Amino acid sequence: MKINQFGIIETTFEQKITELTAIGFYDAPIKLAAQQGPITLFAALMKQAATITAVTTEFSDYMVNENQNLADFLTTCTTLTMQEFDSVALQLLQFTENVDYTLAEPMKGVQALGLPLANIPGVWSTNDLLSAWYDLLTTHTKNGLQFIDFLASHGYFKTTNESLFFNGKAMVTFDTKSLKKEVVYVETDLDTDDDGIKDLVRVDIIRPTTNQLVPVLFTASPYYQGTNDAISDQKMHKVNVPLERKRPNHVTYDEIAYQAAPTNVLTSHEKNGETSVATKTFYPTAHVDLNNYFLSRGFAVVYSSGVGTRDSDGMQDTGSPEQVASMQAVVEWLAGNRRAFTDKTSGITIKAVWSNGKVAMTGKSYLGTLATAVATTGVAGLETVISEAAISDWYQYYRDNGLTIAPGGFPGEDMDVLAELVYSRMQDAGDWHRTKAQWHQKQVQTAQEMDRVGGNYNAYWDARNYLKNVPNVKADVIMVQGLNDWNVKPRQVFRLYQKLQELNIVKKLYLHQGQHIYINNNRSLDFSDQMNLWLSYKLYDVNNQAQTQLPDITWQNNQQPDTWQTKASWGQTTPTAISLANVQTPVSYTDQQTKQAYATYSKDYQTWRSLMMNREKHDLDHARIMFLQPKQAQDLLIDGEVSLQLRMKSSANVGLVSAMLVDYGIERRLTNKPVPQGEQIDRGKNWQPTSLVEFELAQATPFKMITIGHINMQNRENSWRVNDLRPQEYVDLTLTLQPTLYQLTAGHQLGVVIYGTDFEMTVRGNQNITYTIDTKHSQLLVPIVTLADAKD
Amino acid sequence: MKINQFGIIETTFEQKITELTAIGFYDAPIKLAAQQGPITLFAALMKQAATITAVTTEFSDYMVNENQNLADFLTTCTTLTMQEFDSVALQLLQFTENVDYTLAEPMKGVQALGLPLANIPGVWSTNDLLSAWYDLLTTHTKNGLQFIDFLASHGYFKTTNESLFFNGKAMVTFDTKSLKKEVVYVETDLDTDDDGIKDLVRVDIIRPTTNQLVPVLFTASPYYQGTNDAISDQKMHKVNVPLERKRPNHVTYDEIAYQAAPTNVLTSHEKNGETSVATKTFYPTAHVDLNNYFLSRGFAVVYSSGVGTRDSDGMQDTGSPEQVASMQAVVEWLAGNRRAFTDKTSGITIKAVWSNGKVAMTGKSYLGTLATAVATTGVAGLETVISEAAISDWYQYYRDNGLTIAPGGFPGEDMDVLAELVYSRMQDAGDWHRTKAQWHQKQVQTAQEMDRVGGNYNAYWDARNYLKNVPNVKADVIMVQGLNDWNVKPRQVFRLYQKLQELNIVKKLYLHQGQHIYINNNRSLDFSDQMNLWLSYKLYDVNNQAQTQLPDITWQNNQQPDTWQTKASWGQTTPTAISLANVQTPVSYTDQQTKQAYATYSKDYQTWRSLMMNREKHDLDHARIMFLQPKQAQDLLIDGEVSLQLRMKSSANVGLVSAMLVDYGIERRLTNKPVPQGEQIDRGKNWQPTSLVEFELAQATPFKMITIGHINMQNRENSWRVNDLRPQEYVDLTLTLQPTLYQLTAGHQLGVVIYGTDFEMTVRGNQNITYTIDTKHSQLLVPIVTLADAKD
Repeated sequence: MKINQFGIIETTFEQKITELTAIGFYDAPIKLAAQQGPITLFAALMKQAATITAVTTEFSDYMVNENQNLADFLTTCTTLTMQEFDSVALQLLQFTENVDYTLAEPMKGVQALGLPLANIPGVWSTNDLLSAWYDLLTTHTKNGLQFIDFLASHGYFKTTNESLFFNGKAMVTFDTKSLKKEVVYVETDLDTDDDGIKDLVRVDIIRPTTNQLVPVLFTASPYYQGTNDAISDQKMHKVNVPLERKRPNHVTYDEIAYQAAPTNVLTSHEKNGETSVATKTFYPTAHVDLNNYFLSRGFAVVYSSGVGTRDSDGMQDTGSPEQVASMQAVVEWLAGNRRAFTDKTSGITIKAVWSNGKVAMTGKSYLGTLATAVATTGVAGLETVISEAAISDWYQYYRDNGLTIAPGGFPGEDMDVLAELVYSRMQDAGDWHRTKAQWHQKQVQTAQEMDRVGGNYNAYWDARNYLKNVPNVKADVIMVQGLNDWNVKPRQVFRLYQKLQELNIVKKLYLHQGQHIYINNNRSLDFSDQMNLWLSYKLYDVNNQAQTQLPDITWQNNQQPDTWQTKASWGQTTPTAISLANVQTPVSYTDQQTKQAYATYSKDYQTWRSLMMNREKHDLDHARIMFLQPKQAQDLLIDGEVSLQLRMKSSANVGLVSAMLVDYGIERRLTNKPVPQGEQIDRGKNWQPTSLVEFELAQATPFKMITIGHINMQNRENSWRVNDLRPQEYVDLTLTLQPTLYQLTAGHQLGVVIYGTDFEMTVRGNQNITYTIDTKHSQLLVPIVTLADAKD
Repeated sequence: MKINQFGIIETTFEQKITELTAIGFYDAPIKLAAQQGPITLFAALMKQAATITAVTTEFSDYMVNENQNLADFLTTCTTLTMQEFDSVALQLLQFTENVDYTLAEPMKGVQALGLPLANIPGVWSTNDLLSAWYDLLTTHTKNGLQFIDFLASHGYFKTTNESLFFNGKAMVTFDTKSLKKEVVYVETDLDTDDDGIKDLVRVDIIRPTTNQLVPVLFTASPYYQGTNDAISDQKMHKVNVPLERKRPNHVTYDEIAYQAAPTNVLTSHEKNGETSVATKTFYPTAHVDLNNYFLSRGFAVVYSSGVGTRDSDGMQDTGSPEQVASMQAVVEWLAGNRRAFTDKTSGITIKAVWSNGKVAMTGKSYLGTLATAVATTGVAGLETVISEAAISDWYQYYRDNGLTIAPGGFPGEDMDVLAELVYSRMQDAGDWHRTKAQWHQKQVQTAQEMDRVGGNYNAYWDARNYLKNVPNVKADVIMVQGLNDWNVKPRQVFRLYQKLQELNIVKKLYLHQGQHIYINNNRSLDFSDQMNLWLSYKLYDVNNQAQTQLPDITWQNNQQPDTWQTKASWGQTTPTAISLANVQTPVSYTDQQTKQAYATYSKDYQTWRSLMMNREKHDLDHARIMFLQPKQAQDLLIDGEVSLQLRMKSSANVGLVSAMLVDYGIERRLTNKPVPQGEQIDRGKNWQPTSLVEFELAQATPFKMITIGHINMQNRENSWRVNDLRPQEYVDLTLTLQPTLYQLTAGHQLGVVIYGTDFEMTVRGNQNITYTIDTKHSQLLVPIVTLADAKD
């Protein structure tokens, strides 16, 4: 087990005393004890801690070394050293003797666990002990909480409903039993349902009852008002369809660039009065876990599903500028720059008088996507976004290089399917029957514009590419992405991160080894603490240097469990060219499968993918070419985008190329889903406990896909221009795979598998097409850093 | 989707009106509306419901048929029929149009879903509507709640902190924000740590603040105070060891029957005073979900880990009479028949003055086991137990027929390993260092007595066989068991259920298709409602006929999703003998594997088991014999215990026989773990939401194990008597497999696979033993009911 804490700020002794005083750990009795020396002080501190936290308050239940318990120690000893303190600290932090540490060498345990306990040699003074006690309070327990937060979950803090910060982070001092739950309707400047009247969007607010102004964590979630799962499933597109030839064109980007339509003059809702008291409430269940963490710490949490969802006006249009603008409008209301009503008909306006005007947007996937998108509007009041596994360009989500590409795990999904899923106005039968004709028409239009068969980038997609608008970003941006997320793939954050480098804002990136998951409840990383430090800084103006304290890039090592490393850059490495010509040239493979294999793998793409990487002979052999590098002499790091430069031909007038970069070598690798650790952690005094999880080493496997990419041979120039493709005529193309940051173990082999149909992600035409690669004129480009250089 | 509700009691119209009045759905304004006819009444009822539950309160958001919304209907129509009511009811219950029902034929949807809505033809009177409204309130929503509970979770009931019953079930009227959390220490009559002083056991209480006396749900959970996972894992026994020959004996049961040791005179704790106010509190997280459900309904919840756990006295001894007695002592205190202290040293006693003296014990697995065990003491105050996946005889859990047998999924686990896991006194380092010498000695004794190598039933196991004590049972018993639970296997409940038949108590049995799981949050069955009905009857004396209302046996059909059927008996069918002689006789198989296969399958017993059932040729073929019946002409039900009568020989002087009964036939079968439905359900006003789950049909598979069994050829008489076994000498033995209740589809084939080593459950000696079966003198006995007969 290892704990990685990056959210602790260095604090002077004077400041430590000030903060210990503020939180009640340096009160009159403890001051008095301190005057009597470190042993008496230790007894006083332990009494407070033990009473609050422990099953037993008996000092005889703590050991200070192998032979002596704390009760004996305090009565017989006159000096205190780190060894004795650490022994007791490890017990307070719930670590297990002979598993996590030994009483013979507690400091060894502290070091191995990576605990940031004080390192003070010799005999301790009372000041040493006070300083070490402060450090102990910021150190994580075995179960994923700072010790001070563990104390808080056991009732340490009174619910004053006033902010209190410790080591730069907001503490649990707000009452979660009296949270206000309010609904308002924000008036947008949109008219997505074409009735001439401004669309209202419903906003749900949860906030502490307090006299101070509070900032807001706002999550824009089209899922929040409910989803139409069964109906949306029926809309899934068939993927067992052929790849169709496209007529060549000479389209330029300027021709397909999105231009916003001129806005009509819209009717505002009539105002009949004003109030500061909401008239409508709601009954929430937990939605975004990270938000829950902040509710007991003096932050409000706000959800909206935007236009085209239950109890809001308007039509649903995945990722559209209008959808984004409806979320932007919510930020504007929270910042005092837009009006809202208490309901849809009364005309009574209501202000967010409780808000301090500072907003952070949070969320994963679609939720993080809209956070990113709103940031690219530059809206005032949005101080920061924490966007996890977020889409920055919808074309890259459902399309790629002129191909229709499914998010991993969701073959057949597309923009219209997702819209169907979240058009939750369907869930009120009356509202549905009133709007369904318009809705069906809207979906016909979406299907046409998204052009599933063609697959080219066009004005529709350009409107949904937020990367273009990155120069507008004013908010600081925290990004989180799984390097094994093949749903929202790593390129989404890579491109955003690159674009943001040009701006004078703070940007921080977390790259983990998971798939499409949150990381706020991982044992080995103090992500929630870090976000607390960050939001205390951004939204409460706490002077905690969060902008420099948080690493620029935090990368979870894919070889070692519990290992999070900091980095200064991602994807800045110049690629090394690796020839493919050691294979007899040219080489061919044929895409078509037998009827039976086609039926089988259409149903079970997991087995298909595993076989495609498997080096042994099998019935998919004819459908791929594998290039295998020699065994690596040393560990190396692949840093950024791998690409293939290929000279190749298709036997038909259509063609697609897929490629996987693969790590070959038998090894236990990390699970891509964190495993529940059997603990519910309480991060806010019985408020919404969450499951503690951790990535673990799985059974040994012979290979692992590092990254993947696909391209339509007719889009070898770019994704809007269609090139001609003639049967058996060689063309040159570059296939850039999804970016990665991957440590390849010494002794392993790097391999690349090139093939056509991807049973999980492309259409599956089962066409009889033979592809041939001229390996002499083809190469693999890999941004390799040897591991010694990689340490930065 | 189908909903199966067995927890609704038939209610007269007068009683319905009384209850509607009591819960506020027949108040003055509604009475007034009723005087103006059904349309006005409908409007008034809907107004109340819609205001509470709906996103929108607009009547125009409900449809009464394909063309008319509720607002229009109420203003233009003068009569109400079932069709219109059901349309609106389905919307209130959150079902989805065109998925779960259509507006053209709402009653068809109601029927297909199995909803218990009123069936009243013709034009409705106000009384019809009131009666139907009552029925609606008891009907489940799409998301696993009675509609009245859904209303409650949206704040329908005031928190009066007084009991209110509706349709025989306790409603959510207690405040979950002001629950009291108290710790007391119950004084037992035990001295498991041999210090001459009565052991104290810690008890944690959560109870509503109320002026009325409340009953108790008590869960005896050795896990509750924490588990020593890593330490316990180190204690796992090696299973790659040979099966050893046992010296024949002539032991009789009387010789090994357990006799309680005479009790020493023990010192009681000194009493220094009395109080009614607990002095110690605790910070709970959710533990047993079913208990959480009851906290908002006027029930207290109590946990204890018993002797030999953190903050209690004593040694840990899995399943021992002393462990059971320590839990019995808790019941006695709750019923007013034993004393407890506020802490371990002060001598201040405290009574459960808030308790009405009626206790139910709850829990799954070890927790349910102790509930069963305490019931067999006949302790006063224990009114009922709800024991799920409970062990009734520990010998059957870690041993079987003279063999050491692992619970499925846990090879190498045993009584001492489990004791190590829950000896949570280890978690207080001081307490651990004080007691560890005694603990190690205790574990040496346990290891010796449990006799892992021998595997025979002896006095140690007899002490831990609660079936012997069933005649003492006074409490009514609810049993829940998964028919695919190979951890706590079905025989545990089967034997208990059979024994209980002799007693004049209420016994109810639920047999589901899951493995080792709880079923209280399944969508398709109203299990929590049923337990509410049951505990309202047992603990609050509500006259609701729960004892006859609940089915005697509720069986989840293994073929059809969402299908729960009632039965009058289990395992009463006379077996049909099926000859094995169609195979050329005699037939042999050899247990030994190649080194490589042995290593592989030792690590991956899942693949091993799948291959052992697979009919295709493979490298495990030599290690089994498969007998396959012809295709079934019609559906049939296997009801109870299947057994094999075998005449067979071993090539060695040791031998073991394993057998699996297998269903062959390609079919989509139910998952054995319920799948989360993406909904958090709130069953007590924001108190501990739980995930809604359901068994779903998985991908088609070619076979499925129905049941399994193992026997040591030296224990062919019984599990304590050791018979001689000579190489190559035929012996007769009967191998009884775990009981089942399994519907075999027409067209499928029944198969039995006979083999030696079970890589998941037995020791794996990899000995070179050849087994031979004289098939002419062997047969399979299957209790078959043709499906027409099976319907009862």
